[in-house]
Amino acid sequence: MKSLEWLGNALRILNQTKLPAEIVYRDAVSYTDVADAIENMEVRGAPAIGAAAAYGFALGANQYQGDRDGLSSFMEVVQARLEETRPTAVNLFWALRRMEDRLRECWDVDDLDDVRQILIEEASRIAEDDRRMNRLIGEHGNEIVPEKANILTHCNAGALATVEYGTALGVIRAAHTAGKGIHVFAGETRPFLQGARLTTMELMRDNIPVTLIADNMAGYLMQQGKIDLVIVGADRIAANGDTANKIGTYSLAVLANAHSIPFYIAAPTSTIDLKVPNGQEIPIEHRPDKEMRECFGVQIAPTEVNVYNPAFDVTPAKYITGIITEKGIVTHPYSVNLLKLMVRS
Amino acid sequence: MKSLEWLGNALRILNQTKLPAEIVYRDAVSYTDVADAIENMEVRGAPAIGAAAAYGFALGANQYQGDRDGLSSFMEVVQARLEETRPTAVNLFWALRRMEDRLRECWDVDDLDDVRQILIEEASRIAEDDRRMNRLIGEHGNEIVPEKANILTHCNAGALATVEYGTALGVIRAAHTAGKGIHVFAGETRPFLQGARLTTMELMRDNIPVTLIADNMAGYLMQQGKIDLVIVGADRIAANGDTANKIGTYSLAVLANAHSIPFYIAAPTSTIDLKVPNGQEIPIEHRPDKEMRECFGVQIAPTEVNVYNPAFDVTPAKYITGIITEKGIVTHPYSVNLLKLMVRS
Repeated sequence: MKSLEWLGNALRILNQTKLPAEIVYRDAVSYTDVADAIENMEVRGAPAIGAAAAYGFALGANQYQGDRDGLSSFMEVVQARLEETRPTAVNLFWALRRMEDRLRECWDVDDLDDVRQILIEEASRIAEDDRRMNRLIGEHGNEIVPEKANILTHCNAGALATVEYGTALGVIRAAHTAGKGIHVFAGETRPFLQGARLTTMELMRDNIPVTLIADNMAGYLMQQGKIDLVIVGADRIAANGDTANKIGTYSLAVLANAHSIPFYIAAPTSTIDLKVPNGQEIPIEHRPDKEMRECFGVQIAPTEVNVYNPAFDVTPAKYITGIITEKGIVTHPYSVNLLKLMVRS
Repeated sequence: MKSLEWLGNALRILNQTKLPAEIVYRDAVSYTDVADAIENMEVRGAPAIGAAAAYGFALGANQYQGDRDGLSSFMEVVQARLEETRPTAVNLFWALRRMEDRLRECWDVDDLDDVRQILIEEASRIAEDDRRMNRLIGEHGNEIVPEKANILTHCNAGALATVEYGTALGVIRAAHTAGKGIHVFAGETRPFLQGARLTTMELMRDNIPVTLIADNMAGYLMQQGKIDLVIVGADRIAANGDTANKIGTYSLAVLANAHSIPFYIAAPTSTIDLKVPNGQEIPIEHRPDKEMRECFGVQIAPTEVNVYNPAFDVTPAKYITGIITEKGIVTHPYSVNLLKLMVRS
């Protein structure tokens, strides 16, 4: 069960809004298909969104019917549509920038089909890089996981949130494979239930022991000494280490701090955005009211009730024990150490 | 819409598991009916459970077919069944003890129907006391609510959790009636969704501005300075002030503390259990796995997933700014001040 699969002329997207009840795919043949799938959260998770958008960009070039000269301006429209889907995860913009740069490098390639092929190859390289980076995140992260650790995670930073293997769940997979006898508590992650629907399923398929909790139970578990470690993914990491991630992450970080429990972020360096100085500058997406009034399609609250539905929050760097990347683990002071990491090849 | 209504020979119980989608009542004619309704959370909220159990006790006496001599031992069975329904809320045991004492005082009443009438009157007095106490809690609590306050509450400590008016929502009602222009954030309260289903509905019916949030959004709101005050109910308050309340309350208390936000408990003195020295001695109910794998009846997680489903947690007294009771507001040191409060008439 893969989040994304390139079929040669279409991108097969696993519709994650239906899991675990139904396994439904969308074969996206146009950039608008991909944009819709990202917007509706059929594909979600910062790295997976990045790879999907890259393929969407390549599909845009495939759709283009004009002459070579008009391609660039058409591709601006494609890129703009893909960029407007979700504002918080920087991997989306990072991947599209990489595709845009690749297209620009093709200025001397006259044949449109050659350009198209180059763009498809670039998107595939982004996907392949993500696979490789997640394995490395797993390797590095495994070093900080104690034997028999009880690990709390939030949302889904797993294979489904990436092209393969996962970031936070990549670390968990690596620790499990290393025979550490770990156990995972998965927060269900309202309102979209990525923890209940996706993380539990992923871990159960890999026979990694997992227990589902409501998000509001995390503090009680910590109070009882039942959590050794918190590991979550990230949607954007600012230059000072402040990290945007799924709503609820900040609460967990404050709780972990109050209980002296290590709190780690696991993310590829494509999630680090040095152009953003701190967390206050990270745009936070607000999702439709409907998501809060419903739970997996069933109405749970009065139809007319006011709701507040931010999709992300920002955890200040001071609460983050370390950031696990494919290049290694970064710790305080983040302003210095993230910069060093990014210039390291 | 009342949580409970005595019909003369039956207790009409509003089935809160169906709200807000359906308004369904159960007319309980036996103590087992009442016990089932408490166990299934058709009636919930510590004060409402207490009053329901008292009427259940009276219904048990109504059902009794034997002679006057056998009543006491029959009523022991009745009481035991009602007591086993839910372990955490002390109001249940408090109300049943009050009924048991009343029965004992009837030793010289020979006519069974007279005894039955006395028990019904006692149950009605418990219900009436609850109404009165909630109004007083509202009056006292109103004193600590600032003008234009944004108040966060959790679960439902409203009219539906009591006989009328509510405890935490009683304070909110009083502040609203006083024209303070308050606004409420209601945490949805997974897994049973009392906040999403009940609190929003109650407040909307009274035209009190309310915004629904997922439990995991509380920290983010506090970080942004959008919460001035937290007020919640209680299921049992230990002699040192440690308070058991709906799961998630502890997390909110830690978060409020980290953001220097006042955190209040609102509860009648019947919730204070001086026999329990501290929170560690309060029994915590664990609810069926099914509640966590489902959300208002729809399955949201893999069928076989392990779950953890404590219905309550305990907030240490150190995080509690004050306890609002019908006799006034208690503050630190709780060990001394709760004792003083309880002996005060």
